[in-house]
Amino acid sequence: MLKLQTLTGLALVLCAASVAADVMPSWRDGASREAIVNFVERVTKSGGDDFVPADDRIAVFDNDGTLWSEQPLYFQLLFAMDRVKALAPNHPEWASKQPFKAVLENDMKALAASGEHGLIELVMATHSGMTTAEFEQTVREWIGNAQHPTLKRPYTDLVFQPMLELLDYLRDNGFKTFIVSGGGIEFMRPWVHEIYGIPPEQVVGSSIKVKFEMRDDGPVLVRSPEIDFFNDKKGKPVGIHQFVGRPPLFAAGNSDGDLQMLQWTTAGTGSRFGMIVRHTDAEREWAYDRESHIGKLDKALDEAADRGWLVVDMKRDWKVIYPSP
Amino acid sequence: MLKLQTLTGLALVLCAASVAADVMPSWRDGASREAIVNFVERVTKSGGDDFVPADDRIAVFDNDGTLWSEQPLYFQLLFAMDRVKALAPNHPEWASKQPFKAVLENDMKALAASGEHGLIELVMATHSGMTTAEFEQTVREWIGNAQHPTLKRPYTDLVFQPMLELLDYLRDNGFKTFIVSGGGIEFMRPWVHEIYGIPPEQVVGSSIKVKFEMRDDGPVLVRSPEIDFFNDKKGKPVGIHQFVGRPPLFAAGNSDGDLQMLQWTTAGTGSRFGMIVRHTDAEREWAYDRESHIGKLDKALDEAADRGWLVVDMKRDWKVIYPSP
Repeated sequence: MLKLQTLTGLALVLCAASVAADVMPSWRDGASREAIVNFVERVTKSGGDDFVPADDRIAVFDNDGTLWSEQPLYFQLLFAMDRVKALAPNHPEWASKQPFKAVLENDMKALAASGEHGLIELVMATHSGMTTAEFEQTVREWIGNAQHPTLKRPYTDLVFQPMLELLDYLRDNGFKTFIVSGGGIEFMRPWVHEIYGIPPEQVVGSSIKVKFEMRDDGPVLVRSPEIDFFNDKKGKPVGIHQFVGRPPLFAAGNSDGDLQMLQWTTAGTGSRFGMIVRHTDAEREWAYDRESHIGKLDKALDEAADRGWLVVDMKRDWKVIYPSP
Repeated sequence: MLKLQTLTGLALVLCAASVAADVMPSWRDGASREAIVNFVERVTKSGGDDFVPADDRIAVFDNDGTLWSEQPLYFQLLFAMDRVKALAPNHPEWASKQPFKAVLENDMKALAASGEHGLIELVMATHSGMTTAEFEQTVREWIGNAQHPTLKRPYTDLVFQPMLELLDYLRDNGFKTFIVSGGGIEFMRPWVHEIYGIPPEQVVGSSIKVKFEMRDDGPVLVRSPEIDFFNDKKGKPVGIHQFVGRPPLFAAGNSDGDLQMLQWTTAGTGSRFGMIVRHTDAEREWAYDRESHIGKLDKALDEAADRGWLVVDMKRDWKVIYPSP
């Protein structure tokens, strides 16, 4: 009987060890993976000082640069540019009007010169004036067919395998995972459930105003060319508050656009976890931080040390970047 | 062997019958209860024509008049009035300024005369100018201590027992339940999880603008006296779209404020269910519809027959109204 107990105990120990090694297998053994696992074990250990009930285990993730790549431009801007090209036959005036002319001529310099105002104009021209159902269908078709301009792969191949594993690991431990992105909420919802396992109602993002209309063939929601909410920087804690109703336990981002989200999350009482994905791998992905126009990481990097946020170094910490094809 | 199979079969049949009788026990046997159960069985029957995967089983519920009572005034207005009284010592000017004077003197006629503008002023004065954490605490204290003016019971006793059972029944069948209310989102979130089993992130409501501020002792969100979104009438489908990202399968309301939500829900493809709670029981609750200032039910009642929405008659369909103390 004693022998049987010993054997059972040994089997349990072996099982536990093998589970731990299976956790996030694309992360190299080291301080980053260990910090995440330690945190999750602390907040899920029943009876422990840091225990948090499952209902309050909220984890939020930025999308661009945190869950998938964002170079050479945010993928949603590449979508807007593809839409300008597709819609151009109905808009002869675009041939001579910026920023549309720049897009049609692939003139990135002129596009950059149009500034933030130009980009908003591009987004409004391509993201409004249709019903929500029509826009959803357009996004579905694009995401299913479009290819990244330099990597020549579908955009949904360019998600970070280690982050997919982190999402799974958190959910396996009772966390509810949310996206909190500066990107358009309706640009993400049609595909994130399949790709990240995050359902549409757990996506927080920027939005344009939508209006209810009763048409002859039934009610529709129409997308208006007017910004409703900009879910970036100081907007992120506001967006989290609006959609989730309480501060998260865990937040991951990669740029100064995530600074206030990280501050808000880690200022909460009890154990909290802030994490920054640092793009350090010019060979397998891209390397950029303080000087980048996309995903600039400067102030948040300075604050990370003071506030105890984990800075994940892609090159050092991740065995692979993208899922194997 | 045959006998054993027969016995097992019989036991299964008996179990099934007893489960059905246990479903929503506060609903009287009859067409209303039957219509709900039939719908749920159709959309959850694997392989059936009307089957809907669990991920898409979204049910939305209005709050005031649908999940709890709303007479003699929306309970949130009674909260605002209690707050005016509590804050009055710091606001000597209110003694001579409407609509505050009316509240302090319990002059309902003068309060009604201040109209919608007056009510918004009351809400802004009592719902803004503090952090989100402070407001949450105020709501928690009020809901835990305040009493209904005529029934002299806590407000959370005035929820509808048959609706609690409907929420449970839908969740037991894989539905995700949301509140979609014209009331303030932050007025509901502190207590609805405990009372209705609906977590804060599944509450859609009206909101005021909230701003991120970094203070010396850390980041806070401050409530501003400015309306952000009015989640009523045409706003309800917009709010559902914003928070849930797709049309629900099931919607329940009780007034013309829910008309567009019911239209939007039941216009979807496949099986959909629209339901109206009709206040017909002057003895156990209140009786009101077309002429009421609170919870006016007129157009939606006219449309119910054409569109096949279930009209639940409180007096006829419900064995009890409130949970037993």
